[in-house]
Amino acid sequence: MAGKKKKIRKLKQKLKELRAHLETSGATPEAEPRTKKPLPVSPLAPVGGFPNLPEIAGVRFATVAAGVRYAGRTDVMLAELAPGSEIAGVFTRSATRSAPVLDCQDKIGGSADGGAAIVVNSGNANAFTGSHGMASVRELVSGVSRIVGVPEHRVFTSSTGVIGEPLPHDRIIAKIEDLKAGLSADGIAAAARAIMTTDTYPKGASATVKIDGKPVKIAGIAKGSGMIAPDMATMLVYIFTDAKIAQADLQGMLSQLTDRSFNCITVDSDTSTSDTLLLAATGASGVEITGDGIAPFREALSGVMLDLAHQVVRDGEGATKFVEIRVTGAADDADAKTAGMAIANSPLVKTALAGEDPNWGRIVMAIGKSGAQADRDKLAIRFGDTQVARDGWVDPDYKEEAGATYMKQSDLIIGIDMGLGDGAATVWTCDLTHAYISINADYRS
Amino acid sequence: MAGKKKKIRKLKQKLKELRAHLETSGATPEAEPRTKKPLPVSPLAPVGGFPNLPEIAGVRFATVAAGVRYAGRTDVMLAELAPGSEIAGVFTRSATRSAPVLDCQDKIGGSADGGAAIVVNSGNANAFTGSHGMASVRELVSGVSRIVGVPEHRVFTSSTGVIGEPLPHDRIIAKIEDLKAGLSADGIAAAARAIMTTDTYPKGASATVKIDGKPVKIAGIAKGSGMIAPDMATMLVYIFTDAKIAQADLQGMLSQLTDRSFNCITVDSDTSTSDTLLLAATGASGVEITGDGIAPFREALSGVMLDLAHQVVRDGEGATKFVEIRVTGAADDADAKTAGMAIANSPLVKTALAGEDPNWGRIVMAIGKSGAQADRDKLAIRFGDTQVARDGWVDPDYKEEAGATYMKQSDLIIGIDMGLGDGAATVWTCDLTHAYISINADYRS
Repeated sequence: MAGKKKKIRKLKQKLKELRAHLETSGATPEAEPRTKKPLPVSPLAPVGGFPNLPEIAGVRFATVAAGVRYAGRTDVMLAELAPGSEIAGVFTRSATRSAPVLDCQDKIGGSADGGAAIVVNSGNANAFTGSHGMASVRELVSGVSRIVGVPEHRVFTSSTGVIGEPLPHDRIIAKIEDLKAGLSADGIAAAARAIMTTDTYPKGASATVKIDGKPVKIAGIAKGSGMIAPDMATMLVYIFTDAKIAQADLQGMLSQLTDRSFNCITVDSDTSTSDTLLLAATGASGVEITGDGIAPFREALSGVMLDLAHQVVRDGEGATKFVEIRVTGAADDADAKTAGMAIANSPLVKTALAGEDPNWGRIVMAIGKSGAQADRDKLAIRFGDTQVARDGWVDPDYKEEAGATYMKQSDLIIGIDMGLGDGAATVWTCDLTHAYISINADYRS
Repeated sequence: MAGKKKKIRKLKQKLKELRAHLETSGATPEAEPRTKKPLPVSPLAPVGGFPNLPEIAGVRFATVAAGVRYAGRTDVMLAELAPGSEIAGVFTRSATRSAPVLDCQDKIGGSADGGAAIVVNSGNANAFTGSHGMASVRELVSGVSRIVGVPEHRVFTSSTGVIGEPLPHDRIIAKIEDLKAGLSADGIAAAARAIMTTDTYPKGASATVKIDGKPVKIAGIAKGSGMIAPDMATMLVYIFTDAKIAQADLQGMLSQLTDRSFNCITVDSDTSTSDTLLLAATGASGVEITGDGIAPFREALSGVMLDLAHQVVRDGEGATKFVEIRVTGAADDADAKTAGMAIANSPLVKTALAGEDPNWGRIVMAIGKSGAQADRDKLAIRFGDTQVARDGWVDPDYKEEAGATYMKQSDLIIGIDMGLGDGAATVWTCDLTHAYISINADYRS
């Protein structure tokens, strides 16, 4: 049969991809840096490559190749913030969170009088390294403080990469002088590259909003492609703005918007021990965010956060489909998110998406197991504009071919109406493919 | 390099398996029955094939090929129970559970004066079929009651297979006369085969225990291979005993033991809308289970339930590893189970197992995200007898090769000590492989 021949062809193509993948992988847990060829770029990567991000007055960036784990790539970024910069943060809720995360959490809300520095390395997560973990953080913080000239309580560090191996912090400290010398206002794109691990493309987003007739700029970068799930994800996200805003207001806004962006995405339901989102407001625009200015600033910030969150899902390990799940009619918003995330995390739903199978039965299953209040006979499901099921059964006008055709798209929208109340939530996920297994079964990241 | 050549060889083998798999699959949502070749038997299947199960006085079995969905195989089983048989049940907690489940739940605890019948079909789950669902159950129950001669409130039905399509109950009803004519005391092995869906082997277990010097027998069958997770799983389980025991006692024992067996296994964290476990006690042995007899009977029943639960995991879709996760030292038993199930369900842990990668960092991650109380620096991890990590870091004597060698076994034991208290739990899972993706992405079951 022609269909089977096509499948065999697809499998052959997959085998070819696996072979290519094997050739480009080869990470080992040795301490010596080694080269690593990049993974092929995700087919869901934003068209046009890394965006042109505006410079944010009051922030300068530098990157360096310190050989934390791999040679031949930059792996440390430094962001230097002007005195007076307010910093808000959101972190993983993992009970086994890493030493850098614990240190950052402690420092949020400290005095902004001195400058501040954010130092991020890839290659080693400095997680589950016993007492060595915090010792490395202290050495690094002390070195950065001394060389860059900011107070220790204003040095924020993040580490991402392999777990359970001591961080070679001396290799990073040896490069701080170089980093300081290389600081420049337009270094954010290079910073986005330096923090990548299994990411297949760097992630950036920006917005400019006029408040009281004056422009306020926001620019952010992110890394993350697997171990992505609330709360939050294997994600590092750094967002910068020249807005002038009180730390408490900045923190409140960040926490609220995180719940609707980074906490609404999932790749594999796994949560990292290192997730960190820092938002720094330099105040250099002179525009104070109060009163009528709050709503437009929040909206712009929300746009940047959603954009970055979507880019993380689009780089989901092995992903070939970007899927938006819109739940409406739930008993309340929390139930809507619960049902949405159960669908977004279900291996059976995600493999059906990978197979372009309009298998709405698995969606019903996922809603059923979620714990959200549900009435089987009030459920309605849409694939894009196509009504698939209603009143607890397949829609009489639904044709399987319509669903199958829709599933061939790379960007999908699945609509669920629970038929119970006004609760709503939107979450984002990707499909679960052979490539996810290859990436995660065949080598250590 | 030799290692890469070996991987390429493995991939080629995988491709061959995928091809073979494609040739044996081919399920489509057509209503007409069609033939379906069996999947290759799981490499984790118990050695020796289906066990020799004892006949249970008071129960007779029959099977038939009704063409519910597939031709060329039996797909309906009938178990007829003698008057006085007490029946206990445990069911899926899914909010979208199927009509047969709702009907069975209603009937548990009813008068045992008449006989009883259990009718199970594979091929169609009669789930998410709107008002057709309960109508089909009523037709089927009425037909069985009339032909087999048991009260309607004592006819229990289960359906397993595709979701969202109306059950062709007329095809089943047309075969009830044949089923009645074929009833025999030794038909349990055939029954185990008739209820299979994506199972690669039939599942059975038994125990005989002497109480007051007299033998009491227990024999059970199960089906299930995917959509396996508490509470409970895509499982149908039917256990029969000739013990004489009050319904309330039987139900209490079943519920308690389910929490330590079927609710401690997972294949993919997905939960079916149809899970049903029925336990029928005919009383035909004349041995009453009271006082000192309770403990040995419970132990025997527990053994049968654990055996069946493990067989379900061993038939996990695409599984190549059977993994026992023993959590000790947790704050309490519930926390131990929470941490254990988080490890058991983590895609990153399960892909590492598939890749024979002793990646204990992912285990730490899974514990961290579980919500269980955990202190990173008190955690200890063992792979079999090998101490891998302690005091929040890798054990100084641990050699990566020791872990890698251990991971090559097909049966693995992962020990976690949380270092906090006396809470303990053991759960079972399997690895996540390319074959799982193939089975679930490439066709509808």
